[in-house]
Amino acid sequence: MAEDFKVTPWEVTGDIDYDLLAERFGTTPIDEKLLKRLGKYGKSHMMLRRGIFYAHRDLNVTLDEYDKGNRFVLYTGRGPSGHTHLGHLMPWIFNKWVQDTFGAEMYFQLTDDEKFLFKHDLNISDTRKMAYDNALDMIALGFDPERTKIILDTENVKTLYPIALKVAKKINFSTAKAVFGFDNTTNIGSIFYTSMQAAPAFLPSELAGKNVPCLIPCGIDQDPHFRAARDVAQGLGYMKPSQIYCKMFPGLSGADKMSSSDPAATIYTTDDPKEVKKKVGKAFTGGCVSVDEQREKGGNPEVCAVFKYNYYLFEEDDAKINEMTSKCREGKILCGECKMALTDKINVFLAKHQEKREKAKDIINDMSFEGFRW
Amino acid sequence: MAEDFKVTPWEVTGDIDYDLLAERFGTTPIDEKLLKRLGKYGKSHMMLRRGIFYAHRDLNVTLDEYDKGNRFVLYTGRGPSGHTHLGHLMPWIFNKWVQDTFGAEMYFQLTDDEKFLFKHDLNISDTRKMAYDNALDMIALGFDPERTKIILDTENVKTLYPIALKVAKKINFSTAKAVFGFDNTTNIGSIFYTSMQAAPAFLPSELAGKNVPCLIPCGIDQDPHFRAARDVAQGLGYMKPSQIYCKMFPGLSGADKMSSSDPAATIYTTDDPKEVKKKVGKAFTGGCVSVDEQREKGGNPEVCAVFKYNYYLFEEDDAKINEMTSKCREGKILCGECKMALTDKINVFLAKHQEKREKAKDIINDMSFEGFRW
Repeated sequence: MAEDFKVTPWEVTGDIDYDLLAERFGTTPIDEKLLKRLGKYGKSHMMLRRGIFYAHRDLNVTLDEYDKGNRFVLYTGRGPSGHTHLGHLMPWIFNKWVQDTFGAEMYFQLTDDEKFLFKHDLNISDTRKMAYDNALDMIALGFDPERTKIILDTENVKTLYPIALKVAKKINFSTAKAVFGFDNTTNIGSIFYTSMQAAPAFLPSELAGKNVPCLIPCGIDQDPHFRAARDVAQGLGYMKPSQIYCKMFPGLSGADKMSSSDPAATIYTTDDPKEVKKKVGKAFTGGCVSVDEQREKGGNPEVCAVFKYNYYLFEEDDAKINEMTSKCREGKILCGECKMALTDKINVFLAKHQEKREKAKDIINDMSFEGFRW
Repeated sequence: MAEDFKVTPWEVTGDIDYDLLAERFGTTPIDEKLLKRLGKYGKSHMMLRRGIFYAHRDLNVTLDEYDKGNRFVLYTGRGPSGHTHLGHLMPWIFNKWVQDTFGAEMYFQLTDDEKFLFKHDLNISDTRKMAYDNALDMIALGFDPERTKIILDTENVKTLYPIALKVAKKINFSTAKAVFGFDNTTNIGSIFYTSMQAAPAFLPSELAGKNVPCLIPCGIDQDPHFRAARDVAQGLGYMKPSQIYCKMFPGLSGADKMSSSDPAATIYTTDDPKEVKKKVGKAFTGGCVSVDEQREKGGNPEVCAVFKYNYYLFEEDDAKINEMTSKCREGKILCGECKMALTDKINVFLAKHQEKREKAKDIINDMSFEGFRW
């Protein structure tokens, strides 16, 4: 069987068995019944249909509240440790769908403190610059500027800190060790940090002076933070925030998670068409060594990074995904053709994205929580 | 011999052997040579002459810088967990002498976050109210309003947090355990907190954009924080802050430290003359049971709380202290007389103090760091 895997907010290694991971974390799979319920609120999202967003905590509770007229606030974010790549966009695109479908306000947290604390080689001015860069990509996806606020931890700490203190007082080192795998060598800022990531989940309630439901769509690697936040919520008089979790966006090398530590297998939102062509050209497909062999034996979409890119992000049409799958298996389409088609799709997407990203610079200050200036 | 003692920033128990404590902590005793050097800058302070401020770290280095024209900034503070008592005033009075003698700017930190984190029964609004109360007492002592700034952690966190993060990144749990005695049950906010107490020591350097010497006069129980801060300073490009430490102000019950957990043995700055009379009347003196016996055997100033109050705070004149000592030993003065005299001194002091404390309400906002409003 697959080698064992490890998933924490700061490390993803091994071949991830997502069902086992969801079970280990104690999250609930999104089943047909929940999918059907979600379908009632608007056009279903491909990331739900395809099991990319696949696990949750208390999503039903949040929908029950919504049905009673008690709207939830969305909360997601990004740890700014480098340029934005396509993998980062995936959950944000889903968040936008939730915002549009449910008319939800959203807080987008940029954890410049976290990345400073956990990354040996970054200083705070680095992570702030990266936060700006990442925020532009979020805005470029078209979030409603009136209903979306960007939190930058070091800028908004005066509001977050009192909430973080309340959270921190309820979590002891023993729990932090068990949940995050800390040990005696962990720095004391990293130990405290989860309190800062919990804070935006309770912020809407603090601002409203009453309990406001919160839904957090994000990668399942972030679950340890929100498990900790949920555990302390009721003791602080807050509702437990609910979560909906996605799988990690795959790398072009075939790895489970696109990672900035492998730039050649990572497509950044600022890449130009040539770079994209080069990177996709080198993507792992699992195809045969010769054209003849590929025609005869067919390919294997399950291991193919190019197929996964279509499945996760670039081909919304299920019929086309099915066609792609069968053509590949039957050897009717070659890896080179798929790579060319994907390159084109990505470049079309990025051309538009980069244009919107430039325009985002004009509104980023307006979207800053508490009006901080970048 | 004396039972063993324990001194941490949050707990003082047992009979403190101050020389042994200074040695355990690794601080340097203030010797005759250093006293003589300090005498060159102005009229000597009784707390130095009498060995109340008795240990230091690198005070000579800070004085060397001063002699070269590189002025130090003073930093002290208070953990707001209750009303101010006379014990709190003692190191502040010394700070004022340093400010006056060396023309030093001072940062006074009120750690409302700390007391929230370490005290089970306090919430943040409690510790903020207490911080206001404590700040009035500091101001009433006559610090120069132009050169004294009050930091309230939850108000000024935006400025402190980036410095605290840098400190926190350099301290691991192993060190925090060793320095503060933390264990698995310690909450993660308490573990992080020392970084916030380190921050004001480096703040003047951050604000000036160059290294500014910092001198911290405070109780020796705070040394673990500043030992940790000193250890990380150079790695962050800062000068090590220097410290000058005092003994704990004794309780009226004869205990080593005046403590709010024993209100009957604690004189608050807001006590009225009757309360003071009552509390001093019950003070431990170690005197004999009968007047005749006292006349014959004499008393023992070394154990007498009333004598200590004169020695630590209320009798600046060394000749009078000597006279008091010999009269007591020889049985020429009785405990009742000493108690009455001390009651009068305290009440004269408090009457003036309470008046200045009222006036402090008019300037407290002007003295807030970064202009926060109370």
